[in-house]
Amino acid sequence: MKIMQVEKTLVSTNRIADLGHRPLLVVREKAGGARQVAVDAIGCIPGDWVICVGSSAAREAAGSKEYPSDLTIVGIIDHWAGD
Amino acid sequence: MKIMQVEKTLVSTNRIADLGHRPLLVVREKAGGARQVAVDAIGCIPGDWVICVGSSAAREAAGSKEYPSDLTIVGIIDHWAGD
Amino acid sequence: MKIMQVEKTLVSTNRIADLGHRPLLVVREKAGGARQVAVDAIGCIPGDWVICVGSSAAREAAGSKEYPSDLTIVGIIDHWAGD
Amino acid sequence: MKIMQVEKTLVSTNRIADLGHRPLLVVREKAGGARQVAVDAIGCIPGDWVICVGSSAAREAAGSKEYPSDLTIVGIIDHWAGD
Amino acid sequence: MKIMQVEKTLVSTNRIADLGHRPLLVVREKAGGARQVAVDAIGCIPGDWVICVGSSAAREAAGSKEYPSDLTIVGIIDHWAGD
Repeated sequence: MKIMQVEKTLVSTNRIADLGHRPLLVVREKAGGARQVAVDAIGCIPGDWVICVGSSAAREAAGSKEYPSDLTIVGIIDHWAGD
Repeated sequence: MKIMQVEKTLVSTNRIADLGHRPLLVVREKAGGARQVAVDAIGCIPGDWVICVGSSAAREAAGSKEYPSDLTIVGIIDHWAGD
Repeated sequence: MKIMQVEKTLVSTNRIADLGHRPLLVVREKAGGARQVAVDAIGCIPGDWVICVGSSAAREAAGSKEYPSDLTIVGIIDHWAGD
Repeated sequence: MKIMQVEKTLVSTNRIADLGHRPLLVVREKAGGARQVAVDAIGCIPGDWVICVGSSAAREAAGSKEYPSDLTIVGIIDHWAGD
Repeated sequence: MKIMQVEKTLVSTNRIADLGHRPLLVVREKAGGARQVAVDAIGCIPGDWVICVGSSAAREAAGSKEYPSDLTIVGIIDHWAGD
């Protein structure tokens, strides 16, 4: 799993129905790193350092085997100082 | 999921039957980045910033578990300024 | 999916039975990039620019869910000028 | 599989129920490399060089097909000198 | 699939039962590249240039859908000169 920091919510009005209403968050591995989009299965706020699971495990972690996610936040790290 | 920008449609006359008639788009993560090909499940136009799902989730997002995609556009981002 | 160019056929006499007789091709994303091996599901010749699907979708694209491929050529691009 | 070194335990109080009580460890491929999080299926201690399996195989290696892992420690290397 | 060279056998006494007795080999894509661990489904010796399959295909290539591999050697290349 990757250690990433939540930056903000991503707004995507026009999206496939399978994504439902789960929040999509912009995350990044480190300051200056490429931004990615993760499905929030926890309830995070900007600034949180989180554990993101990828690969096929991201689907079930997002709620069901059919959920179209390849990056899902599965935990908030209690203390993290960045890299 | 990755944040990518749509560049243009890709024409591939000679392709496997499983790809069907879904549009294939050339996308890239940032200006100068490597181009990739994504299946369009939304209806995008060049210039759009989009959310692309990879891994095994790309198949079902493209319509069925049997669809041979490893990168599928699942949403258009309302506002994005590039990286 | 990745955009790659076919370089040549790869000869591997000693291989697992599951690979069968499908042709294995050496491909690369760009001149100087790392070479990879792709299963040819189309019928390509050296120099062709092709669409390669990876992840779990590569198996079914190669013919069956049991086929041991993680990179399968699913289409030839009509016109491509390199990157 | 990747060769990684165990750094420490990761504490994440707020996490999805599917992660259960399996220990989560911070691992890295080499000094200075990016830290990742792996599920420990063996019983490691900081400093151990371990074999980490990713992709969909990480789920079953962590105990069940439903376990949300994309990186699981499956073995401790007897002797390893770093890279 | 990746083109890698076999370096040596990896000894891991303490490993999960699912790995069984299949040999684990240290492989690398090129001199100086990062070392990885691959399951040998062929019978290789150090110095061999081999085809390694990753992703979910690595599991079945290693013998069964339950085998915890994300990198399996599926063929020896007859002639290869390095990159």
